[in-house]
Amino acid sequence: MAAARLTSRDIRSESRLVVVRALLAAGGSTRNELAEATGLSLGTVSTIVQDLLKYEIIAETGPVHGGIGRPTTGLRLNADRGRVVGFYLEDRYLEATVFDAALGELSTVEATSEEPVEDADDVIEWIVGALDDALGKAKASREDILGVGILLPGGMQRPVKAETVPSAIWLHLDRLRDRLGLPVVVDNPLKAIATAQLWLGAGRRSANVVAVSLGIGVGAGIIQDGVVVRGATNAAGEWGHSLLAFEGRRCRCGRDGCVEAYVGLPGIQRTLAEIAPGHPLAGDRDDWTFASDLAAAVESGDPAAIATVERSAHYLGAALTDLVAILNPEVITLSGWADAPASRERVLPIVRQRVLADAPGDAAAGLAIEISPRCGMEGIAAIALERFMRDVGLVTTRVIPAL
Amino acid sequence: MAAARLTSRDIRSESRLVVVRALLAAGGSTRNELAEATGLSLGTVSTIVQDLLKYEIIAETGPVHGGIGRPTTGLRLNADRGRVVGFYLEDRYLEATVFDAALGELSTVEATSEEPVEDADDVIEWIVGALDDALGKAKASREDILGVGILLPGGMQRPVKAETVPSAIWLHLDRLRDRLGLPVVVDNPLKAIATAQLWLGAGRRSANVVAVSLGIGVGAGIIQDGVVVRGATNAAGEWGHSLLAFEGRRCRCGRDGCVEAYVGLPGIQRTLAEIAPGHPLAGDRDDWTFASDLAAAVESGDPAAIATVERSAHYLGAALTDLVAILNPEVITLSGWADAPASRERVLPIVRQRVLADAPGDAAAGLAIEISPRCGMEGIAAIALERFMRDVGLVTTRVIPAL
Repeated sequence: MAAARLTSRDIRSESRLVVVRALLAAGGSTRNELAEATGLSLGTVSTIVQDLLKYEIIAETGPVHGGIGRPTTGLRLNADRGRVVGFYLEDRYLEATVFDAALGELSTVEATSEEPVEDADDVIEWIVGALDDALGKAKASREDILGVGILLPGGMQRPVKAETVPSAIWLHLDRLRDRLGLPVVVDNPLKAIATAQLWLGAGRRSANVVAVSLGIGVGAGIIQDGVVVRGATNAAGEWGHSLLAFEGRRCRCGRDGCVEAYVGLPGIQRTLAEIAPGHPLAGDRDDWTFASDLAAAVESGDPAAIATVERSAHYLGAALTDLVAILNPEVITLSGWADAPASRERVLPIVRQRVLADAPGDAAAGLAIEISPRCGMEGIAAIALERFMRDVGLVTTRVIPAL
Repeated sequence: MAAARLTSRDIRSESRLVVVRALLAAGGSTRNELAEATGLSLGTVSTIVQDLLKYEIIAETGPVHGGIGRPTTGLRLNADRGRVVGFYLEDRYLEATVFDAALGELSTVEATSEEPVEDADDVIEWIVGALDDALGKAKASREDILGVGILLPGGMQRPVKAETVPSAIWLHLDRLRDRLGLPVVVDNPLKAIATAQLWLGAGRRSANVVAVSLGIGVGAGIIQDGVVVRGATNAAGEWGHSLLAFEGRRCRCGRDGCVEAYVGLPGIQRTLAEIAPGHPLAGDRDDWTFASDLAAAVESGDPAAIATVERSAHYLGAALTDLVAILNPEVITLSGWADAPASRERVLPIVRQRVLADAPGDAAAGLAIEISPRCGMEGIAAIALERFMRDVGLVTTRVIPAL
């Protein structure tokens, strides 16, 4: 479909989000400072502040004494406006995090299951249980909740297979919504990490950011011109399933040679197995403990572990160069396994050198590659907060992808 | 830098471009039809039509009799408002095309040189000569020209090396502008092919398009959400220098394993040389005649030529899958060597099959891959026309990348 046209009403809506994000970035601010930070006129900012005060999205903090003239009124996000809850689901693992309305984390709970949780009713009760646990830990109740966000991989189409956790949620979202009695938004994790950078990370200072997530799977959330790139069916960012090596290693997606088969954690184990067949850490473990075990081996001077990390850094640098060639970002953020001391010391220098050497022309000349702690959970909370602002009529433009 | 905020004035500016593009797409239209086609209100369309009539960008064509009610006034782009001229430059090759103000092609001239033209004065005089030839052929004069657009590869930074044609232009653009006495805009060819699709091609029906150009070099113009993706320094789209094969063939950019080293015309020659060493067409010819020679060999049943085309189609399909994974477009257009009967028959089916099989999840489920005749020359003419609309004050938002 063709791009929808913006109206003046949409502009006001976008500007409200801009002001909310600027206030979040500043912590506390004044109308004048917000006008300066956003480039909006003081009149526009004042109107927006009125709207946001009316719905208690923001609050006044009392007089602020500047250098000259009479004191102005301080403003901040109204953290106590309510709570938003983010969920991350796999078939044996569930995580729920409660945030306040200024995206401050209040509590997080994890639940694991010996057996995959696949039945829709079981999944729903699992979520409900985790929600109550997390709310209890945060001393909050369901009445406080402005919205719930769930991270689910994939595009907009619901999956055909019914026997996975994501499928159970996609196929039974209405039942989950009824059971919770709360607004529920579902989005793709890559869109969530891009949104987290937009609200809380590199997106505050740059309009062109790629947020790379490195775990068992790998992917990229893309911000172009200050907007999260979603693609035609919300499936953009699957850089992990772009090619590193034609007819290379078989990826779990079924394609041969994907980036993920080299820089996802199981891929790094395969590199170790190539370098040192029979190494105690080599194998195909589908969990995060490999990352810390490998870091410990590097720390102890294990040459195979060191060679593995270095070769993986070359793979990562090559794969990031592709993002630079295609998207020409100003900032690339790395989260996941890159956010560890061993990685900062050994991986980042190789990655930076490789990208600078291989990127076409001057595409990487002004590029920053940095570690970021921002995660998809914060992004889905921000998306749930956007959704709440839409429900009260403050935001008109954002199309919340799932249902 | 962070994304600039839109104002109501910018919205009007964007809406004017939307109306101009809708009118171009429709050929002729009425205010009512334009409102329907663009999603803008009839009142907004009427205001915009007044603005565009005032500056003679569009013209009235007389009464149109619809089904019921009184006749309304027909509208069209005012082709005779003036002329725009596009240039494509290499160090031994120059092409100039004159368009009317409705982007209809009026004349085109080519000039070649035995020796590379490198001196800035020589380049400028070469351009001036081609301009006069092209204008003569189009029965136009310099007074008719609204703007000149030049396709130059690379990002926003001027190149350091001075001894290439693009560098000569980058470094001496002010002199060229003085010599011509005309408004000159310079842009990257990949942005121009994206713009051509936006104004004249798949961008008319889809907001998410990747326009792939296949020649000696290869690249991708990207449209996301109805906007041409430029990246931080206007260098986005260099898909030709993303990886096909880690540590694969050396590319002319210096990197190993680039897409271009496999699906650019010299890359296809290398594939032929791998399949049939000593084949008369194998080599490293840096020109377009190889494409027609190869097509003729395929036509004559040459097994090595057929195998080369088929293997190249697999490479192309793999490389396009990466664009699908990262950008999730609704349409991919192919121009250049793909736009030939042999390619349509033998390349496209393999490419489509490969993309559908290898793209992650359902990212390619609704994807169209199609041949398009749209070219960068049309895009740079559209950019020059946008620039003219900016000069008269009708467009405020577009930042013309070069100077």
